[in-house]
Amino acid sequence: MALSEFALIERYFRSCGAQRTDVALGVGDDAALLRVPAGCELVAATDTLVAGVHFPQDSPADSIGHRSLAVNLSDLAAMGARPAWALLALTLPQADEAWLGEFATGLGELARSHEVALVGGDTTRGPLCVTVQLLGFVPAGAALTRSGARAGDVLFVSGTCGDAAAGLAIEQRRLTGPPEVRSWLRERFLRPAPRVALGEQLRGFASACIDVSDGLLADAGKLASASHVGVELSYSEVPLSEPLAALLGERRARELALTGGDDYELCFAVPPHNIARLLAQLPPQDWRYTRIGALRAAPGASVVGDGTVMEFSHSGYEHFS
Amino acid sequence: MALSEFALIERYFRSCGAQRTDVALGVGDDAALLRVPAGCELVAATDTLVAGVHFPQDSPADSIGHRSLAVNLSDLAAMGARPAWALLALTLPQADEAWLGEFATGLGELARSHEVALVGGDTTRGPLCVTVQLLGFVPAGAALTRSGARAGDVLFVSGTCGDAAAGLAIEQRRLTGPPEVRSWLRERFLRPAPRVALGEQLRGFASACIDVSDGLLADAGKLASASHVGVELSYSEVPLSEPLAALLGERRARELALTGGDDYELCFAVPPHNIARLLAQLPPQDWRYTRIGALRAAPGASVVGDGTVMEFSHSGYEHFS
Repeated sequence: MALSEFALIERYFRSCGAQRTDVALGVGDDAALLRVPAGCELVAATDTLVAGVHFPQDSPADSIGHRSLAVNLSDLAAMGARPAWALLALTLPQADEAWLGEFATGLGELARSHEVALVGGDTTRGPLCVTVQLLGFVPAGAALTRSGARAGDVLFVSGTCGDAAAGLAIEQRRLTGPPEVRSWLRERFLRPAPRVALGEQLRGFASACIDVSDGLLADAGKLASASHVGVELSYSEVPLSEPLAALLGERRARELALTGGDDYELCFAVPPHNIARLLAQLPPQDWRYTRIGALRAAPGASVVGDGTVMEFSHSGYEHFS
Repeated sequence: MALSEFALIERYFRSCGAQRTDVALGVGDDAALLRVPAGCELVAATDTLVAGVHFPQDSPADSIGHRSLAVNLSDLAAMGARPAWALLALTLPQADEAWLGEFATGLGELARSHEVALVGGDTTRGPLCVTVQLLGFVPAGAALTRSGARAGDVLFVSGTCGDAAAGLAIEQRRLTGPPEVRSWLRERFLRPAPRVALGEQLRGFASACIDVSDGLLADAGKLASASHVGVELSYSEVPLSEPLAALLGERRARELALTGGDDYELCFAVPPHNIARLLAQLPPQDWRYTRIGALRAAPGASVVGDGTVMEFSHSGYEHFS
């Protein structure tokens, strides 16, 4: 793809993202030149989406473009960082112009809505695979991490969980339902909305944060483990969307909310002394987050309902392939 | 690969690269936290290597690890930048521990030799594909680009060209020869040495720079085009290694030097008024670079030998797949 690479990048990606004044040199040279604001640390994440593993082979191209950036925006949100610049490594079986146009539309719309500039990349021939590297910044020392939680901190999650896993099942025709429910859940998989604004707001409140990509229970467990504590989730408090609960019934919906992946919500811990200030300054009804449990000294991650510990398998991405 | 991803990254990549004090948070969280030195611009590049496209399916794993970083180091070298931090997006058909160990060895040795820390990444299941994102820095305003050359500037290239293309042909058993020649050329493909130190030294001398990845003629043409000028290469001055000339004869060796890819040398333009200072401060015999032509007002890229313009096809990567 040596000769066409140039033309491809030029045509579809040069003006795909936001325009930013801190980009000294963008797409088209050997590397991009960027200006990190004084007093800030650089934040860098990368995530890969592989066809047939992270999305169905026949997913709409604009969804693949959207999701390839969304998963990385979600990582930066979990750090409390402001996203700024993206690089795109796109591997394609062939250069299909219609596909590229839709892909660039999906990627570009999300990029512009978060003021992210696309500053470089590489286009290669091969099995469909998209890797986005996202760069951003955060005031030095202020980033959220997975490892700052303590026993007694309260655990929250944004939005609702399990919707994306149901949406993927609908997309793969493993699940069906009324058209408007199908459509709403499908969108939750195809076009997740990473919680970038919430992540930035949580600096100064949260002791630890992680984004929910592999499943709420698994990711809450990772946060707890990185913080050298354990976590207990309350079964009845796991937030469910109305469409999911209506389609699956409460029991199956809650199971999917705990184990299904691809939600890209934020799961965060808040020390008890910060709770009142959090609830006052970031009203839950405006910012859409729910208390779902607490960190504890005993290691591990468990779910408690009706006073008993319940068992769930960590399915994560495994059932997507 | 949700559950094993964690263990994989931990085991093979956590201490794979250099240790750096400007890494506030490395592998293991949602993103890395890095400190760009004051007065510097951030430099960011990404390149993907796809099995069967950029290297033979049965390439040694340590070579794949080495090359995945080398191609990006070469991009930063072309900007005159100092590399610092890498992120690795590794897609693998299965988690083969022996393969991962060798891959990490090849990547890690090159990373440590350039003081590059591996600060994050993503491991996914799928057809073998490696994307590295490399970050570094350069004093603000001092970066080399492709676009600064003017007509009359002298064009140079580091090292020798065509060796890697011959090495790949040997690796693929399309070319053979005496064992020591085969071995030397094969190494030039499997373990290229990006010219990072030279790139940094060229700041203040060169008006434009590009790394030679797609072939000397093609890349010199890209530099010229980005600078809105043309370029004329001197056929007899294109530098050849002794093993390549001995194996192929001068005519075929020179053709491969002009059109073969994967050399990862630097091609750079120097204004006439900087030449004497360049030759004095960076002696060509020490820094291993050769004058190969000049930039001109007329657009395009041509090769002149014995006073006549010669024709070469830009093969680039096309013949590698």
